[in-house]
Parts: sequence; structure tokens; C-alpha cells
Amino acid sequence: MELTDIGKRARAAARYLNGLDQTGKNRGLGAGAAALEEGMEEILAANRQDVEQAKAGGMSPSLVDRLALDESRVLAMAGGIREIMALEDPVGEVLSMKPRPNGLIIGKKRVPLGVIGIIYEARPNVTADAFGLCFKTGNAVILKGGSDAIKSNQAIVKWLRKGLGDAGLLEDAVQLVTDTDRETTRALMRMHEYVDVLIPRGGAGLIRTVVENSTVPVIETGTGNCHIYVDQSADLDMALSVIVNAKTQRTGVCNACESLVVHRNTAQAFLPKLKKAMDAYGVEVRADEDSRKIVPDFAEAAEADWGTEYLDYIVSMKLVDSLEEAIAHINRYNTGHSEAIITRDYDSAQRFLNQVDAAAVYVNASTRFTDGNEFGFGAEIGISTQKLHARGPMGLEALTTTKYIVYGNGQVRK
Amino acid sequence: MELTDIGKRARAAARYLNGLDQTGKNRGLGAGAAALEEGMEEILAANRQDVEQAKAGGMSPSLVDRLALDESRVLAMAGGIREIMALEDPVGEVLSMKPRPNGLIIGKKRVPLGVIGIIYEARPNVTADAFGLCFKTGNAVILKGGSDAIKSNQAIVKWLRKGLGDAGLLEDAVQLVTDTDRETTRALMRMHEYVDVLIPRGGAGLIRTVVENSTVPVIETGTGNCHIYVDQSADLDMALSVIVNAKTQRTGVCNACESLVVHRNTAQAFLPKLKKAMDAYGVEVRADEDSRKIVPDFAEAAEADWGTEYLDYIVSMKLVDSLEEAIAHINRYNTGHSEAIITRDYDSAQRFLNQVDAAAVYVNASTRFTDGNEFGFGAEIGISTQKLHARGPMGLEALTTTKYIVYGNGQVRK
Repeated sequence: MELTDIGKRARAAARYLNGLDQTGKNRGLGAGAAALEEGMEEILAANRQDVEQAKAGGMSPSLVDRLALDESRVLAMAGGIREIMALEDPVGEVLSMKPRPNGLIIGKKRVPLGVIGIIYEARPNVTADAFGLCFKTGNAVILKGGSDAIKSNQAIVKWLRKGLGDAGLLEDAVQLVTDTDRETTRALMRMHEYVDVLIPRGGAGLIRTVVENSTVPVIETGTGNCHIYVDQSADLDMALSVIVNAKTQRTGVCNACESLVVHRNTAQAFLPKLKKAMDAYGVEVRADEDSRKIVPDFAEAAEADWGTEYLDYIVSMKLVDSLEEAIAHINRYNTGHSEAIITRDYDSAQRFLNQVDAAAVYVNASTRFTDGNEFGFGAEIGISTQKLHARGPMGLEALTTTKYIVYGNGQVRK
Repeated sequence: MELTDIGKRARAAARYLNGLDQTGKNRGLGAGAAALEEGMEEILAANRQDVEQAKAGGMSPSLVDRLALDESRVLAMAGGIREIMALEDPVGEVLSMKPRPNGLIIGKKRVPLGVIGIIYEARPNVTADAFGLCFKTGNAVILKGGSDAIKSNQAIVKWLRKGLGDAGLLEDAVQLVTDTDRETTRALMRMHEYVDVLIPRGGAGLIRTVVENSTVPVIETGTGNCHIYVDQSADLDMALSVIVNAKTQRTGVCNACESLVVHRNTAQAFLPKLKKAMDAYGVEVRADEDSRKIVPDFAEAAEADWGTEYLDYIVSMKLVDSLEEAIAHINRYNTGHSEAIITRDYDSAQRFLNQVDAAAVYVNASTRFTDGNEFGFGAEIGISTQKLHARGPMGLEALTTTKYIVYGNGQVRK
């Protein structure tokens, strides 16, 4: 189908979804989840073709693992949609409603964004997830997945649409763009007449491409060069435990710790312990010169290390003379994701919270908590590292906007 | 100065402003307002040069009027800044703060956006206004005004900066880009490393250029093709009074009415009255064929009229058979600004409010109320017609974002 046709159908579906009540939306989610289970065999067969082709093309085993589905993964996709079904629907809430001196009553009502475009890479579970979150919030969604997962995505979307259709609901609430060439993706990024917002989900390259080429407003879900700062007053055991968790509990994720900043006054006591702990987990520490005077076995850090998101068993390490220097270093090199201080000092904690510029700033806790489920949102469409509209983990509310509703009785402006 | 230098200075100023408390910010606003009064002569002299050059270049009288300053207009600029000073500062408020089961306490705190770029045309009062709104919310601002007002803007910014400097505050909180060529503007639009958000203020062409070329997130302040729908149950006197107000109280503004949609069942009674009222105000009505059967003196509407924002004493006019047809017409041709229904019917009112897709939707009131002051925000940086971040009149809150602050005592993720 032509991309503009997809856009027009999505716009029509958005109007339709805006009129669907909570019962109708939950019915659609239930039908979509059931359809995935019903279509299990076909989805798995399509996925096997994608996986074979990916292997033949030399895809790395870890990426093949992200692409591959089995019965339990498809059941998990259906389960994820049912979890979204159980969440509270943010749409329709009137956030405030107040009379003005002239008698107008002005309220601010939460409404769907309209049409959401999601551009993502080879993980087919995003397909079901994005459908669930968008449908719950009354948004039509246009999905543009990676070419590696095209057959899987086609099968998943086919069954989701079948589920909607069988339930008497409009199938165009979810559409897949099947042309996976670059030109189609670019055209989608410039279709601001039909798409209200684009959310790219994937690596830094994909996100940069979308930000730089899109005329549709973008919610940037970003990379995380997350720091942990060990203050001079830190409980060193706590520091160690938090660092081990933030660095090693899962390394390939955006909220993992990538860089350590340590106050010089604690270095002598702390660095040897850190070295032992990092060795135990197989983490390479790339340290500045002063750190290496204390622990010569640390690897040498280059300037490029301060800005690197390793997503691996590597961490950079820098000594500082003061909290100010720590904050300046973090604000210079971070990506606005998650930053933590380990301290027992009241003033250091408050200043770190106030002055570090990031979506989430922590005192005495692991950066790994920056996540929709951990924050209590129940679901997440991504973690925004930009400042407009949504910042940090994005739950259902991030997929809504507001409109002013105004009740009058003939008022005119003087 | 090089644009990247301006960007770096703005970024540094944003860090500085983030640390400035409410007293400091209000002191800066007071100093800026006083400096404009102190610099009156120089500002007026600079403006005279701009005005002379504009006249020599053949600028239309209405645009020259927007450009020209006199003592009362400069005093009004200073007064506007003092009004902003008196508003409540939204920065620092923690919107919610709740414990999680693991003991983490997570709060959402309102913080400045950082660096705001404003690209605008020939109105020098925007310069003072934008400074006031941005400084109040702790944001550094980069101003890029039109070449026609360059001398006026230079003088205004010079005195604002002098005011800040004399008050012991950082002058770089407000900077003006003095290169007015197209290349510089384009470079500013792509400087996402230093600018957090761009707000274009001006005509449709300027806004389109910014949206299409910017990699910095944009808040689109848009055009208004605003409709008034006269339902079959409408109080026709009220309809007439609201239409006259929305069309004629000020024609050159985005919340003025540009198009009328009338239910066929009221046409016979309403259209002759409308014709009389519009004639009295010198408004040309461009009507569809069916309307012209009732009032043959109406001008003929072409397809292009439905999508036109006249900003003039012209209004388009269409008959419909039903509320549904009215809503479909409005949703097809509107620009997402302000739409009104005149009705006595409960169900029509609710359906119009729910189904019309716009920043502000009215029952029985003039669209002219879509305005920050009329909505009770005290000040306004523009009216957003997009859906991300802010929609409708943007007060001080629209110039803020949030960050999550997380208090822990050693929590790690399991």
C-alpha cells in the first residue's frame, strides 16, 4: 500500500479510536492478545524464516536471540497486552476545570495524540507492545520495523488486525509499513500531515537518523551514558553494591552505569576495593592517571572514554577534587539519562539532585531503576532523554496530549 | 560572535540560571525592566533607523506599525516584564512524590528547559517579552529577530544585558543573533547540542521553514483557521453576537473566526440576519451554493476558501445537514487551533467537545478567548497548535520540563 494511503487510514482510525470508550478499547486489547495465541503457529513459522535469513546473512548470535521467537515469547507478548489492558486509562480525565471572571469554565482534558509512528529495529516483541500501548490510549499506530524481522512483524500484525476485525473493531488501528527500504522510512519521517509523533526505538544511529530527518515531532528515546559519583562522605560498601548492580546486573541496557566519578578523599580507601569487585565480575576499568597511581592495574582511559556508552563489561573512572567538579564532568559528558550520587551528606545530595541535568537523578540507589515498571507506570514505550513532552520512562500518559474544553453562555471578548 | 559561541554561552547561562532562586530571578526581571526605561532614548533612536529603512524599502503601513516603537510602547515592554515578575514561578515544584515498594521515593520536579531559541519576525516587543518569560522560568534565551528590526533588537538586548550586569547577574541569559542571513538561521535550527527547544513566532511561512528544517525540537505556534458551527438548536442572537465578535473584534489574529458552518435547518432564519450583520461590519461572506440560494448576495466560495486563514474582513460559509457533517468538515480543514459550537442541545455540545480535534474547543463562546491572559496564565509565549509538550496558549509552565528525583538508601535492582 502507498504510504499516504496508510497515513489516511491511520488518521481515520484515530478519529474512530477517539470515539471508542474504555470497554471497547479493552475488548480490542483482549482480542489482539487472543489472536496472537491463535496465530501462534503462523507467527513462529514466519519468524523461523526471518531467523534463517538472518543467520545466513551473518547476524551476530546476540541479535539473532533478540529476533527469535518461541512459544513462550509469543505467549509473553499476549500476556504483555493483557497487562496493559488492566492499567488505568488516562484518556478523558479533565486535569483541571476552573471558572474565569467572565463566567467561562475552562478545563484541560487528556486526549489521544492521534497517529503515532514507531520506527524500530529487529525485535518483533516491540510490534505487539506498541500496539497494546497505542490502542489502550486511543491512538492509531503505524509500525515500521526492521527488514530483518519483516516476516515476523507481518504475521504478528496480521493476527492483531484479525483479532480486531473479529471483535468488530477497526483493523486500521494498527498498520505495518512493509516496504523496508530507506526511502520509505524517510517519507514516513516527513509525513507530518498524517503522523502526530514519531518514536524511534533502537540504537543511537537509528535515533540520530530520525531526529535529523524528521519533520514529524519526535520523542527521542536515547542512549545512556550513566554516571555514579562516590562522594567523600559515601558509605563505601553501599557504593560498591550499587556500582556492581548498575554496571553488571545487565550490561546492554541504557540505564546501566558506564562511568564512575570518585572524590579524591575516598580514593585511597575505595579504589582497591573497587578493583577487586570489578575483577570478580570481569569488568575492565578504564581510569584516569590519578586513579592509576593508586591502582596501577586499571586500564588507561582516553578522552573518548568519558563520552562512551560501552553497553559492555567496561566502565570509565575519574577522580575529582569536589562535588562541583563531579557535577561539571557529568553535565559535560552525560546523555541526560540517569545519574546517581552515593553520599551521607545532606547538602551534597540536594546539590546533586538540583544541578545534574538528566531525566532521572538518584541519591544512594542504582541507575538501573529508570524503567516504567520500576517507576510504577505498569508499562513503558521507551525512556525519553529529551526535554519536550515527556522525560524519563514513558508510560501511557506520554502517549496522550490535552485539549482545552471551554463552556460558555454567549461570552464575547471585549 | 560565532553561533557556536553563542550556543556555548547560552548553555553555561542555563546552568547558572538553574541555580538562581526566585528572588534572584525577580531581581533580574526588575533590572531588565528598569534598563529598558533607562535606555529609552537609545532604543527609540535605533528603532527610528529601522523604521526609516523599512519605509524606504516599501514595507506596508500595517507592518511598519508593528515595527515602530514610541515611548508608551517601550514603557509597555517594561511593564510587561514587571507583570511576569509578579507571576508565580513554576520551577522547583515537585508534582508528585511517592514511595515504591522497595523504599525508593520517586518525585517529579519541574525544572527549566535549558536553552530556548526564539525565531521571530519584525515585532521588537517580542524581544522583551521572550526575555521576561524565559528568565522567569530559569531558561537562557537565544533571540533571532527579523532583519527589519535588527537595530531595535540590538538596542533592547543591549539594555536588558546591561540591566542584568549592573544587578550582578549573568548577561548571557539573553543573547541576540545579529547575523540575519538565512544561513545563520538554518544553523541555529540545527544546533541541537546547545538549544533544547525552538519556538518560531510569526507567519505561516516562517513556522513551516522552522518545522521542516529544524533538528532542534520545535514548539509550533500556528495559524488558526477557526470555525464557528451554528447548530440547529442554536440561540440565533447568541450565534450572531459570537460570530461578530470572533470575526471582527480583531481580524489579524490567529484566534479570529475564518469560517462558518451552519445547520441547514436554521439557514432560512439565520442567513439573512447574518448577511445584515456582516454587511454592517464590512465582512465579505464567501458561501457555498446552497447558502447562496437563500442569500444570493453572498460571494461564491471556492474549494480553496475552506482552508484559508484570511486574517481579514472575509469569512467562508458552508451549510451542513448534520452535526456529524459539521465535525467532519471542521476536522478536515481546521488547523488545530480554536473551534466553537453554538447550541442549546446537551448532546451536540458534548459531541462537539469530544470529537473536534483542536487545541481549544468552545461551546457558546467566541474563539477569540484562546489567549494566555484570557485563560488566566498571566502571560503567553504563543499558542501551540501541535500536540507534543504544550497545546493551546503557553504560559510559564510550557517553558519548563520535569526531571525525576529519586531518594534511596542503597537500593539495587533485582
